[in-house]
Amino acid sequence: MSSQKQKLLIIGGVAAGTKAAAKAWRENPYLEITVVTKDQHISYAGCGLPYYIGGVIREERELLVKKPEDFHVDMGIKVLNLHEALKILPDEKVVIVKDLVSGKNINMPYDKLLLATGAYPFVPPLEGRELGNIFTLRTVTDASALKNKLTGSNLRKAVIIGGGMIGLEIAENLTLLGIKATVIELALHVLPPFDRDVALHLEKHLREKGVEVLTGISVTGFTDNGLGEVGAVITSAGAIKADFAVLSVGVRPNVELARQCGINLGTTGAIAVNKKMETNIKDIYAAGDCAENINLITGKPVWYPMGSNANKTGRVAAINLVGDDAGEVLEGVLGTSVVKIFDLKLAKTGLSARDAIASGYEIETVLVPSPDRAHYYPGSRQIITKLIVERKNHRVLGAQVFGEGTVDKPIDILATAITLGASVEQVAKLDLAYAPPFSTAISSTSLAANVMINKMQGKFKGVNPIDLKERMDAGAVLVDIRVEEEYFVRAIPGSINIPLGELLSRVDELDRTKGIIFNCKVGLRSYNALLKLKRLGFANVSILEGGIAAYPFETE
Amino acid sequence: MSSQKQKLLIIGGVAAGTKAAAKAWRENPYLEITVVTKDQHISYAGCGLPYYIGGVIREERELLVKKPEDFHVDMGIKVLNLHEALKILPDEKVVIVKDLVSGKNINMPYDKLLLATGAYPFVPPLEGRELGNIFTLRTVTDASALKNKLTGSNLRKAVIIGGGMIGLEIAENLTLLGIKATVIELALHVLPPFDRDVALHLEKHLREKGVEVLTGISVTGFTDNGLGEVGAVITSAGAIKADFAVLSVGVRPNVELARQCGINLGTTGAIAVNKKMETNIKDIYAAGDCAENINLITGKPVWYPMGSNANKTGRVAAINLVGDDAGEVLEGVLGTSVVKIFDLKLAKTGLSARDAIASGYEIETVLVPSPDRAHYYPGSRQIITKLIVERKNHRVLGAQVFGEGTVDKPIDILATAITLGASVEQVAKLDLAYAPPFSTAISSTSLAANVMINKMQGKFKGVNPIDLKERMDAGAVLVDIRVEEEYFVRAIPGSINIPLGELLSRVDELDRTKGIIFNCKVGLRSYNALLKLKRLGFANVSILEGGIAAYPFETE
Repeated sequence: MSSQKQKLLIIGGVAAGTKAAAKAWRENPYLEITVVTKDQHISYAGCGLPYYIGGVIREERELLVKKPEDFHVDMGIKVLNLHEALKILPDEKVVIVKDLVSGKNINMPYDKLLLATGAYPFVPPLEGRELGNIFTLRTVTDASALKNKLTGSNLRKAVIIGGGMIGLEIAENLTLLGIKATVIELALHVLPPFDRDVALHLEKHLREKGVEVLTGISVTGFTDNGLGEVGAVITSAGAIKADFAVLSVGVRPNVELARQCGINLGTTGAIAVNKKMETNIKDIYAAGDCAENINLITGKPVWYPMGSNANKTGRVAAINLVGDDAGEVLEGVLGTSVVKIFDLKLAKTGLSARDAIASGYEIETVLVPSPDRAHYYPGSRQIITKLIVERKNHRVLGAQVFGEGTVDKPIDILATAITLGASVEQVAKLDLAYAPPFSTAISSTSLAANVMINKMQGKFKGVNPIDLKERMDAGAVLVDIRVEEEYFVRAIPGSINIPLGELLSRVDELDRTKGIIFNCKVGLRSYNALLKLKRLGFANVSILEGGIAAYPFETE
Repeated sequence: MSSQKQKLLIIGGVAAGTKAAAKAWRENPYLEITVVTKDQHISYAGCGLPYYIGGVIREERELLVKKPEDFHVDMGIKVLNLHEALKILPDEKVVIVKDLVSGKNINMPYDKLLLATGAYPFVPPLEGRELGNIFTLRTVTDASALKNKLTGSNLRKAVIIGGGMIGLEIAENLTLLGIKATVIELALHVLPPFDRDVALHLEKHLREKGVEVLTGISVTGFTDNGLGEVGAVITSAGAIKADFAVLSVGVRPNVELARQCGINLGTTGAIAVNKKMETNIKDIYAAGDCAENINLITGKPVWYPMGSNANKTGRVAAINLVGDDAGEVLEGVLGTSVVKIFDLKLAKTGLSARDAIASGYEIETVLVPSPDRAHYYPGSRQIITKLIVERKNHRVLGAQVFGEGTVDKPIDILATAITLGASVEQVAKLDLAYAPPFSTAISSTSLAANVMINKMQGKFKGVNPIDLKERMDAGAVLVDIRVEEEYFVRAIPGSINIPLGELLSRVDELDRTKGIIFNCKVGLRSYNALLKLKRLGFANVSILEGGIAAYPFETE
């Protein structure tokens, strides 16, 4: 190899940039590696910021994974923080970089260039945006600014604009600080990537915890409290008083630098890359939040700005940048994600039912409650698994798991299964670890797969709770077959009670001409009831999927 | 279908028997289903018994999943408890059953028969076995007997014979009751299905918690305390005082009934079945702990008496028993298991390194520590992943994960990957759920896979901690490259300290002719140190896999 060191220049110093730098150093000692970032901090834990606001994470330094010096001492990697890349000159293979401290511009030559410029919080052009006490939360500096502002202040009422993961995590953490939080979401439910039958459970939980949740509402601006600070948020549903506001309507990829030098953007607006993370310009790669991903199921471009993807794409880019013979590719990602809001955890992988239908798949779905560990073991909590399966070949396309129990385990099992192309039958038979403190003997995942198999074999018809009202309005009778004590504690409005043990003796009370929908706690007894009536020749019988456990609306 | 109901007779009423009964009822309403069990209880949670002893589970009734009446009310299934099946007459399709209350024999005809006779605790023919205060633990009745004996007694010193999962769970639960427990294991380490480099960590943990652990020792009998009760356990290493003893040397399949009527047993001693759970005699099936399994990797018969398998095989048997057209098969299982002993959790799936080698696979292994969630998130704990990969095709053959953090999630991810035939490269790129409370941005599983890929690509040579002493005895130098403060807190005997930052300036202190093994906290800095020395032309450099975190012996 030549003794002249090749120059690898990396723009961006958070997840993808620092991951790529370290990996490139390990792969090839003959590189001169420089990381340029306009931020003060590098390699920080962006996903930890909401917890820092709430005090769950106490010290700013805990969020800083590595310091610039660490890279230099351990690997001879030069980190230029407070340096902003202004322009890429691909023909000359030079980046013009501004030293933000001295104000001087530097021409930095490169042999290979990695763009890891990340994403920035989208700030819609709202009236009054320039008022005080309107925050965004993307960097450690942002987080410290908000935290310092709150410390000892009398800001007691927050409006969070945006009901995505970060917005809701902020709502939780502000509530923990004793601040009254209102979340405004433009979509019809919070966490728009999730399906509505799942997300509504989170809205219920947020309200129980004292967070006001307003959905299907747009924000048009802010009013002044008379001191140049926000006083209220103006929405399509009127003004909402606010001592401060947090804008969390999502992020956008930082692509200006790329666009200006002729690098192609994809349909998502992020930088288009191939599976090796190469852009259309030779020797320029992109990784992390600024770059597009491929959805592993649809094969189409998507943009999932997530820390897990940043680390993966940074690694793949590094291997290709240093010119490893075999190279490395990333076939795609699933958008697997998990969030904890107060006591409720929600996780998702692959396609939602909504996205699957939009992508043209014919699907079947089920909602299946289960304890997360042996029901008799202390700490056992309920989770609900939603499976989305392709009808024609039984391939699992997606899953959502939520509840107060463990949800990251089942979603990771399902992400693994989906990645490897598993059918629902294969998922049903997985040999997963069982012991009372960890699981049920039949795992929640296998149970959900078994229910799906029964449904696909036509053994029962299910009604999704979202569709229940429409079915009842059309004349279907909701029969709750739990025992009377359970029914009186909590029931779905409009249901009648016939305990399962009395079903056969009271069968004449049911009108065979009308649709009958059975309901119980989780769906199992409903299935038994349905089988009994089918054996008596009832034709139009179905079960409320997931029973009262999966019912996301108010009960009485 | 004929109006004459087909008779399904099930012998055994715990996991496989009751699962099969319920599933058969749902599959086919035209069956007359009877479950016969000599036990008083049915459908109990065998895996919960140690926790009941320790008071983690407080009430006997919590262990009882269903009562005999439940089956009758919900599904018309007749459950005959306290009824013992004495003999199967396959030609006449009759089972002779004894009513243990009345003492009368009944001839029970069947069309289809399922053997779910389970397993029994093996009691070796030890001298003094008949003495008082020697217990086994298999049924709810056993558990209640031991618990009642301990309540208000002055039995303070227990010897547990057998260091498998149940034996160790008993040791933990007795310790929680303030009883001094000694565990005696015949094998060279506790938890014999695990590899030694993993199991030794559990032995260390047990000792820290006050449990005495003796391995490689055989028990020959018991001495009398003069009152007809056990006074001491006689072993190959002398007598060990005991107020009471618990025999937990494993279980054996209940196959007498099957053997006597001509049903074939397999090489494991359990009932031989095909993938539909059929025995060699027409219309007789077997499921649960009495039946063999197929190992999904080797394709060879194994016997894994576990609740998870009992539920799976019971379900498959039921579908085939009722004659569903398609039928159902279980291709095999992985022996996936998990156990929590005090604060340490250990999980396993697929082949151990030892079993893989014994089965003729050429393998590579790694030991990779990682936090189980973001290191800065409260509650983050370390886990260590051991991967076992086939050299020729990079297929993952097995994994073991242990530590105080979450181990069931990574093992289930790996069980899923192994089932679906994943390579280590596929595991490395899995898109798993990341958020600070749940995972690290690069999951512990992907990290371990990446380390394995580096190792298989020849980027480093690793030394398993079990082999370290031998290597040092042969002249290799162990160089701890952590900073001085870390080294002084805890170090491996015989190591020298050269902090990574000083490595290049102090390189002359190292003898190029001798093997050099680097050590750090988890292995990452050792890898960087190795790369630096390789670049200086050092040929014989390796790293201690998993660093001090994975080192299972005493440190100083």
